[in-house]
Amino acid sequence: MNPVIEILSQGEEITTGQIADTNAAWLSQQAVVLGFNVARHNAVGDKLMDLVQVLRDIAMRADCCICTGGLGPTSDDLTAEAVAQAFDRPLLFDEIAFNQIRQFFANRQRIMPECNRKQALLPKDALRLDNLWGTAPGFALQAGRCWFAFAPGVPAEMRQMFLAYIKPELQNRFVLQPSRLITIKTAGIGESDLQERIDTIEIPPQVQLGFRAEWGEVQTKLLFPGGYPQDNQDRLENRIVSLLGDAVYAVAENDCQDNDLVSVVAKSMAEKSYTLSAVETLSQGLLAAKLAGMPWLLNSVYERAIEKLFHDFNLSYDRENLISSSQALAQAVQSKTDASMISVQLYSGQDCTQSNSENAVTVTTVLLVNGEFKQSIRILAGDLKRKQHQAVLLVLDVLRRYLQGKAIV
Amino acid sequence: MNPVIEILSQGEEITTGQIADTNAAWLSQQAVVLGFNVARHNAVGDKLMDLVQVLRDIAMRADCCICTGGLGPTSDDLTAEAVAQAFDRPLLFDEIAFNQIRQFFANRQRIMPECNRKQALLPKDALRLDNLWGTAPGFALQAGRCWFAFAPGVPAEMRQMFLAYIKPELQNRFVLQPSRLITIKTAGIGESDLQERIDTIEIPPQVQLGFRAEWGEVQTKLLFPGGYPQDNQDRLENRIVSLLGDAVYAVAENDCQDNDLVSVVAKSMAEKSYTLSAVETLSQGLLAAKLAGMPWLLNSVYERAIEKLFHDFNLSYDRENLISSSQALAQAVQSKTDASMISVQLYSGQDCTQSNSENAVTVTTVLLVNGEFKQSIRILAGDLKRKQHQAVLLVLDVLRRYLQGKAIV
Repeated sequence: MNPVIEILSQGEEITTGQIADTNAAWLSQQAVVLGFNVARHNAVGDKLMDLVQVLRDIAMRADCCICTGGLGPTSDDLTAEAVAQAFDRPLLFDEIAFNQIRQFFANRQRIMPECNRKQALLPKDALRLDNLWGTAPGFALQAGRCWFAFAPGVPAEMRQMFLAYIKPELQNRFVLQPSRLITIKTAGIGESDLQERIDTIEIPPQVQLGFRAEWGEVQTKLLFPGGYPQDNQDRLENRIVSLLGDAVYAVAENDCQDNDLVSVVAKSMAEKSYTLSAVETLSQGLLAAKLAGMPWLLNSVYERAIEKLFHDFNLSYDRENLISSSQALAQAVQSKTDASMISVQLYSGQDCTQSNSENAVTVTTVLLVNGEFKQSIRILAGDLKRKQHQAVLLVLDVLRRYLQGKAIV
Repeated sequence: MNPVIEILSQGEEITTGQIADTNAAWLSQQAVVLGFNVARHNAVGDKLMDLVQVLRDIAMRADCCICTGGLGPTSDDLTAEAVAQAFDRPLLFDEIAFNQIRQFFANRQRIMPECNRKQALLPKDALRLDNLWGTAPGFALQAGRCWFAFAPGVPAEMRQMFLAYIKPELQNRFVLQPSRLITIKTAGIGESDLQERIDTIEIPPQVQLGFRAEWGEVQTKLLFPGGYPQDNQDRLENRIVSLLGDAVYAVAENDCQDNDLVSVVAKSMAEKSYTLSAVETLSQGLLAAKLAGMPWLLNSVYERAIEKLFHDFNLSYDRENLISSSQALAQAVQSKTDASMISVQLYSGQDCTQSNSENAVTVTTVLLVNGEFKQSIRILAGDLKRKQHQAVLLVLDVLRRYLQGKAIV
């Protein structure tokens, strides 16, 4: 069993929702890869008794806890005081911490305000964690079952202190078997359809299976515990990938960002020296916006009135035949651009930009490349923003399937 | 004393740090304004016993709890099952919920997969919360001291359900003294400049002052406790608004979405019956994408190679004089569109789409309206995404200042 870790964030700005708790997310990613089981996130405001209570709860539940925030100089920074009360560890003045704080101000040619003296008070027998990046030193101590480490809430300081001091301590103190997180990324298949296919095989109970869906992309996550045999892992992974077929566009270990759909398409576009000219309707500029920074997107046009688009090219718009209309438009665009690929997307029915109707629309995506047309016809529903995002995904998925030599659906 | 609320988020994607918990932040903001004391945030993964335990803990500690996530159709969606075990409330099949789920698929011309049937199982005697925005119905029930409401984790669905069903229930069930959150929204002024201006006045200690900056927009937040005299509130608010001058584009009470910069511009554009045709460069389609659904945006063109843009209009591009180049281009665009406003944005220096350089660029934004040119020259720095977002903000702010009769900076 992996040791159990919890994350505790302290600060009124979190409990009142002024900021989202990105520290907890960052620390959890670090902890999972190290080989911990992250059981809970906790956040409390600037109330001493709430903080004392949650510290005592965690001391009974978890093997380890990383705490952020509440180490500043002001009266609402209560973490050290709460630790003192929760675990009966009186605060003692730490000469070295005090000198570091004074030095921080001296380096900036400023006088240390009196209130910062408080930051040098640490619970008895705590391990001081130096803060070379700010004024608040951190500290660590064992209480009950749990080893606690306390770091400031400022994300940059917290991350530096975690990597420099807390992570090595964790690796020393715990027997850790790093986990492996495999993410199988798919487009062009719904979450329920995907789940039904995966349900046909047996997932060993030690392997955690999870799904994440956003705007029509679905990620299937497999978390393999440390020590899980590599052969079995490969077999399971390959089995699922083959079940999901052409919908799979990437398989990532420990989920790096280079494997999102845009990156996968971009890599292939660049390798094969393709360039794109796009005609956007339902996506309303979002295709271009998502491809920001991609030198292979030469241009993109969004026109609210589809008739106007055809009129500008001296073409007639046949609403009853979106595919042939798209093809004619793609050819007309090709004559005016240097791009080697043209994408045209049209949709049936009402002008989607006029209302936030959730009605389903039929969307056609046509790609003209090397003198050939590739096309996809799909039905999209949901509010305007949902349709807009899914329309972008359709174009990216047609590109991806063409570039990877997969069937276009 | 305000009633105590906690937030519970469920999902392995949160405890493993795949996503930051923005639902907890949004719900907390809502709860604070309603008059609750947000005591804790809790997040647990997809482990049944962890979920059962945290539900039981909260039932003893809080008056109310809003829970998100774990209501999907897949095997890792455990919330209803955990509630059944924690509070001894067997799951019962809800005919109405089932019909709503079936209807969701029927509207999209899809067959409901068998696994979605599970979403119609609700704990005995729970209040069903309809989900008109997705497949997962929510539910609510009293357990111990605490009234629990369960909503899906998909942010858009969760927010709609909270506003439509959960918020009115909270207002009925609890005696609440609402706080007032005043948000003063500004564009075209930096965060430190803004803070220095506000530092010149005294903020009473009961009033919480906060700032939030994103892509060059800054929000100044003032949280007034329930019962704070209206006169004093108005005086402080007016004082700050006048200190910030033309940079203020909206003052919102309780931070509704209708007061973001896009909405403020959209309202004015519609009232005055203006329409816009946009030429995008640095914003790379993001202007159009952010204006999705706005019928007054007639079209938008993004062209990576600025020279090509001028070439297509038989114009010459003078890189040394971006303003006169922009003006010439705006006039050429006007001859080909029905729009009553033309916006053209250009930038100096390297092609920003070719690298992620953090170099500063000079950005010119020209608006052609009623035969007159309005223009803004600003310097933007940071990575490509930051520049892209700030470029959009510049266009919106020029539009806003023109529509509100404010000086364009």
